[in-house]
Amino acid sequence: MAADREASNDQTSSRIRVLSSHLHSPPPPPRMTSSEKDAALAATPSDAPTIFDKIIRKEIPSTVVYEDEKVLAFRDISPQAPTHIIIIPKVKDGLTGLSKAEERHIEILGYLLYVAKLVAKQEGLDDGFRIVINDGPKGCQSVYHLHIHLLGGRQMNWPPG
Amino acid sequence: MAADREASNDQTSSRIRVLSSHLHSPPPPPRMTSSEKDAALAATPSDAPTIFDKIIRKEIPSTVVYEDEKVLAFRDISPQAPTHIIIIPKVKDGLTGLSKAEERHIEILGYLLYVAKLVAKQEGLDDGFRIVINDGPKGCQSVYHLHIHLLGGRQMNWPPG
Repeated sequence: MAADREASNDQTSSRIRVLSSHLHSPPPPPRMTSSEKDAALAATPSDAPTIFDKIIRKEIPSTVVYEDEKVLAFRDISPQAPTHIIIIPKVKDGLTGLSKAEERHIEILGYLLYVAKLVAKQEGLDDGFRIVINDGPKGCQSVYHLHIHLLGGRQMNWPPG
Repeated sequence: MAADREASNDQTSSRIRVLSSHLHSPPPPPRMTSSEKDAALAATPSDAPTIFDKIIRKEIPSTVVYEDEKVLAFRDISPQAPTHIIIIPKVKDGLTGLSKAEERHIEILGYLLYVAKLVAKQEGLDDGFRIVINDGPKGCQSVYHLHIHLLGGRQMNWPPG
């Protein structure tokens, strides 16, 4: 843990390089049909690294609030509530999103929710909080590495977005 | 299960009695400190039946979309999206909300999310969906029996409420 953190002392400039290289490589194949594009997009995320891999490896700085061998929890850089934390599995194992969950993922899915509860308690969210998991474009998913949003510290509203 | 269902054929009037007896007994000890009150409040919901118990026992009708020995999924009567489904554990086991989760609940928590994925697929939510778990008053929790909201069929927005 301490060694990982010390090894990850890079700054915004390297983050921009990382994002830039991710955006430009690999180039899309020419003349894809719409359905081919969809298939490629659907197939790609399982293997494609995301910004979360860099965060896990501490190549991009984040404010970590909880970490163990299986999960990492850090503050969202664009918080939608006074407390807004992202909780992710360190090993994606095909879980680009919840829609890709298989039976073998049940334990890590449960553990992520359990850690969310621990973090909520640690953050003092005794009056309540909200858990959100976005899947796919209609769910507003932005990073294709399964993640749980924990929001609290204000009155949450209904409907949930 | 069958015996439970047969033994629980009461109606709204008995529900009112149940709620009423719950509200009035046991009386709160006099001159509680604030922290004692919190402890009493925290202890109460674990044992109190909710409307979901009636739904599980089919004493209150619901539109069930998935059921197995561990979980029940049914349509929300006040939907916030074209698809809005509630997924609950049949045995509450102290899980009035996620904030009450213990390590022993990890498997059922993961299984609830896995069933949410199955139901999302069954509902044809291939373009995405959102999972929401509300906890406590600030999270807008309305029923104190842990439940997962699955919302889809429209573009979900950000922030999530």
